[in-house]
Amino acid sequence: MSLEEILSLNDQFLEVIQRDDVLEIREFLNDQNISDVAELINEFPEYEHQIVGNMSVHRAAKVFKILDLPAQKNIIQELPPNKTAELLNELPADDRTAFLEELPSEVVKELIKLLDPEERKITLALLGYPESSVGRLMTPDYIAVQIDWTLQEVLEHIREVGKNSETIDVIYVVNDKGEFVDDIRIREIILANPDKVVGEVIDNRFITLNVTDDQEVANQTFKMNNRVALPVIDDKNILLGIVTIDDVLWVANEEFSEDMQKIGGTEAFDEPYLEIPLMKLFKKRVVWLIVLFLGEMLTATAMGYFEDEIAKAVVLALFVPLIISSGGNSGSQASTLIIQAMAIGEIKIGDWWRILRREILQGLLLGTVLAIIGFIRIVAWSSIFPETYGVHYVMIGVVVGFSLLGVVLWGTLIGSMFPLILKRLGADPAVSSAPFVATIVDVTGLVIYFSLAFMLLQGLML
Amino acid sequence: MSLEEILSLNDQFLEVIQRDDVLEIREFLNDQNISDVAELINEFPEYEHQIVGNMSVHRAAKVFKILDLPAQKNIIQELPPNKTAELLNELPADDRTAFLEELPSEVVKELIKLLDPEERKITLALLGYPESSVGRLMTPDYIAVQIDWTLQEVLEHIREVGKNSETIDVIYVVNDKGEFVDDIRIREIILANPDKVVGEVIDNRFITLNVTDDQEVANQTFKMNNRVALPVIDDKNILLGIVTIDDVLWVANEEFSEDMQKIGGTEAFDEPYLEIPLMKLFKKRVVWLIVLFLGEMLTATAMGYFEDEIAKAVVLALFVPLIISSGGNSGSQASTLIIQAMAIGEIKIGDWWRILRREILQGLLLGTVLAIIGFIRIVAWSSIFPETYGVHYVMIGVVVGFSLLGVVLWGTLIGSMFPLILKRLGADPAVSSAPFVATIVDVTGLVIYFSLAFMLLQGLML
Repeated sequence: MSLEEILSLNDQFLEVIQRDDVLEIREFLNDQNISDVAELINEFPEYEHQIVGNMSVHRAAKVFKILDLPAQKNIIQELPPNKTAELLNELPADDRTAFLEELPSEVVKELIKLLDPEERKITLALLGYPESSVGRLMTPDYIAVQIDWTLQEVLEHIREVGKNSETIDVIYVVNDKGEFVDDIRIREIILANPDKVVGEVIDNRFITLNVTDDQEVANQTFKMNNRVALPVIDDKNILLGIVTIDDVLWVANEEFSEDMQKIGGTEAFDEPYLEIPLMKLFKKRVVWLIVLFLGEMLTATAMGYFEDEIAKAVVLALFVPLIISSGGNSGSQASTLIIQAMAIGEIKIGDWWRILRREILQGLLLGTVLAIIGFIRIVAWSSIFPETYGVHYVMIGVVVGFSLLGVVLWGTLIGSMFPLILKRLGADPAVSSAPFVATIVDVTGLVIYFSLAFMLLQGLML
Repeated sequence: MSLEEILSLNDQFLEVIQRDDVLEIREFLNDQNISDVAELINEFPEYEHQIVGNMSVHRAAKVFKILDLPAQKNIIQELPPNKTAELLNELPADDRTAFLEELPSEVVKELIKLLDPEERKITLALLGYPESSVGRLMTPDYIAVQIDWTLQEVLEHIREVGKNSETIDVIYVVNDKGEFVDDIRIREIILANPDKVVGEVIDNRFITLNVTDDQEVANQTFKMNNRVALPVIDDKNILLGIVTIDDVLWVANEEFSEDMQKIGGTEAFDEPYLEIPLMKLFKKRVVWLIVLFLGEMLTATAMGYFEDEIAKAVVLALFVPLIISSGGNSGSQASTLIIQAMAIGEIKIGDWWRILRREILQGLLLGTVLAIIGFIRIVAWSSIFPETYGVHYVMIGVVVGFSLLGVVLWGTLIGSMFPLILKRLGADPAVSSAPFVATIVDVTGLVIYFSLAFMLLQGLML
C-alpha cells in the first residue's frame, strides 16, 4: 500500500469509529486485510479494545498473531476474561506457544487455565519442547489420511475437517500407529484420478523435521526444499505436528535481528526499538559495554609498561590509535564474515583449518597494503613537515609499517578463529564477537607495536 | 537427516555410481529428495555431470535451482549445449532470472539464445525489472480464472494446466483485460460447493505487490499476511505474475547476509565463503579497510597537535586506547541497533527526533557508568602503585572520567544518527556503518580527551 492509501485508511477508520455504530464498525473491519487491521491497532492503540472486540474471533486471532509483543500483552490485559479465553482458544497452537513463551510463568499459568481441556493439553505439550526447537514452532492442526483411502475419500475428509487445519496444501499419510508414512501435496490429489488410492499417488520422497531439531534447521530445510509445510516427527517416527513456512520466515527475521544485535554488542531484545523501556534498553547495552571496557583497561596497563619508551619518543604515541584501530577493523571484518557464513550453514567448525589457511593469506595481503600506505604517509608527511617526526622518520615509518602488517594479520586470525572457538565451546558465535575481537586485538596490537619499536629503534631513539 | 544418514547416503551413492549401471543410477537418483541430490553434487562435484544427466529434466531443474552459484556455473559449462538448453527451458522463470542476473552479460546473451521463443520473451521481460525489485522474483506460471466460471470448471482447468504452474495453492481471478480482481486459496475452492461460481467465493480481500516494489517489501508483506503466494501487478493493475514465499525466504536469507557483511565492513558477496576466489575475497575486503585506514590517519594528525601535551604528561597517552575504544564500542552498538531496527521496518527516518532523545539519555547513562568505573580504576590503581600516575592521579581520573562520558555520549549520538543520514541520502545504511562510526568517533574522541586535559590540567601538569 502506498502512503496515501494508508493515510486514507486511517482517516476512514477514524470516521467510522467516531460514529460509534457497532454494525458499521464491524462491516468496516470485515472489509480490511488482516495486516491492515494490525496496522490500525499499531496506529491507534486507544481503540485496540474496540477493534478486537468487533471482529469475529477467527479474524481477531489472525490479527493478534502478527502484532508486536507489547500490543499483544495490552490486548490480553484489556479484554474481559471471557473474550481473552475465546481469543486464546482460537489462536493456532504454534502462535499461542510463541506468545506464551514470552510471558512470565505466573501469567502463563493463569492464561492456560482459560483454555479448553483439549487446547490446554496441546499447549502444555508444545511448551515442553526446548526453546528454539522445532517443537515450539509446530501446530497439531494438520490433515492426516490413511494409505488405503481413495482420493475421493481424502477430498471428502478435507471438506469435513479442513476448516480448522493450518494448511490443506499438504496432506499427511499415517498408519494405524500414528507413524508418519509420506506427505502428498493437494495438487497431486486434485490432478490425479479420484478413484486412485493414496498408496498409488505417494512417491515415498519426503522430508521430515525432528521435534528436537533447532529452528535454524527448519529454516535451512525449507530453503532447500520447495515445500510450504513440513511434518514433524519424534524419534519413534510418530507424526506430532507440522511446521509451516510462514512461521519459519518469522524465525528467520528474528534470528537475523538477534545476530545483528549480538554482533553490535548488545544483548538481544524482542521488543521494537522505539517501544522498549529506556531502562531495559540501558541494561541490555551497559552489560557488554562494561565487559568490553574492563577488557580495554588492559590497554592502559599494556601502555604503562612502555611509558619510558613513550617518554623518550613521544612520536610513537601518535600512531597508537591508527595501529590498534586497523587491527580492530580487520578483526571485525573477519569475524563478521565467519559468523555470517556459519549462520547460513556455509562453514562448519571442521573447516577451521581451511579457514585458517585462507585468513593467513588474507591477513598478509591486507596487512601489506595498509603497511605500504602507512609507510608512504609517514615519509611523505615528513618531507613536507620535517619537524613532525624528526630525523628518524624513515625508521618510524618502518616500525609503523611492520606493526600494521603484524596487527592486521593478527586481527584477521583472531577475528576468524574466535567465532569458531565460541561455537566449539557451545556458545553463540555472534555474541559480541566483533567488539570482543577488537578488544583482544587492541591489547595485543599495542604489545606488537611497542615491541617492534623497541627492537628497531633501540640506539636510535630509545 | 542425521550425520549417519548422510554418510550412508554418500556411501550408497558411491557404490551405485561406481558400478556405472545407468538404469541403477537413475533409479537411485529418482528415489532421493531434491535437497539430498543437491548435497551429493556439493559432496562429489566430479560426478556432477552424471548426476544431472541421469535425472529427468524436471527434477534436474529443481536440483539446479537450489545449488550454489559456482556449482550452477560448472554444470552449465560442462553439460552439452542441448542438455543446457533443456535445463534452462525447464527452470522456473523466477529461478532462471535469479541465475542469469549473476552471470556476465555476454554469457547471458549466449544462454538466452538457447531458450524457446516463449521462455526467451519471459526472461527478457523479467530481466528488464530493476535489480532487487519484486519483478525479478516473480514467475508468470500461475493459474488464472474468470469471475463467472463455476468451481467445477476451475477444478477442471487446474487439472489441465496445473502441472506447469509454480503453485496451485492459490488461484488468481482476472477480468477480460487481464486486470487483477482477487485471489482464492485452493482450500476455499475445495471446501465450497462445486456449483458455485468464482464470484460467489471471492472475498475482495487481497494483498498485491507492485512489480517495482523492493524485495524487502515482499518479505514484510509475506511476514504480515499468512499467504504462500502473492500476485504482482503493474501500475495499471494488470496481473503480471506471482511471487511465492519460498523465494522470499531465499531473499530474506541473502539480505541478512549482505547486511551483516556490510556492517562488518566488507562489500557484500554472493558466493559461499569457502568457494569465493582468494583475490576476489581480498578485493572485497581491502577497499573498506583502506577507506577506514585513511580515515584513521586523521587520528595521527589529531594527536600531532597534542604532541607537546603528551611530552609534558606522558601518562595521558596511556588512556588513549581506552577512551577511543569506548567511543567506538558505544558507537557500533548504537549504529547496529538502528540499522537492524530500520531493516525490519521498526523505525523510519521520520522517527529521528524520538531516536535522538532516547539516545542522548542512553549515552549519558552509559557514559556515566563507564566514567565512574574508569575513575575508580585510576584512583584505586594509584593507591596500590603510587608511581604509575604520579601525584595528580585524582585530576587524571577526573579528566579520563569526563572524557569517557563525553566520548560515549558522542559515540552513541553519531552511531544512531549516521545510519539515518545515510538512508536519508539514499545510501544503504548498513554500508560499513559500525567501523565508519568508530573511525569518526576515534578522531573526535581524541580531540575531546586532549581538550579536556588541556583545560583541567593546565598549571598542574601542562
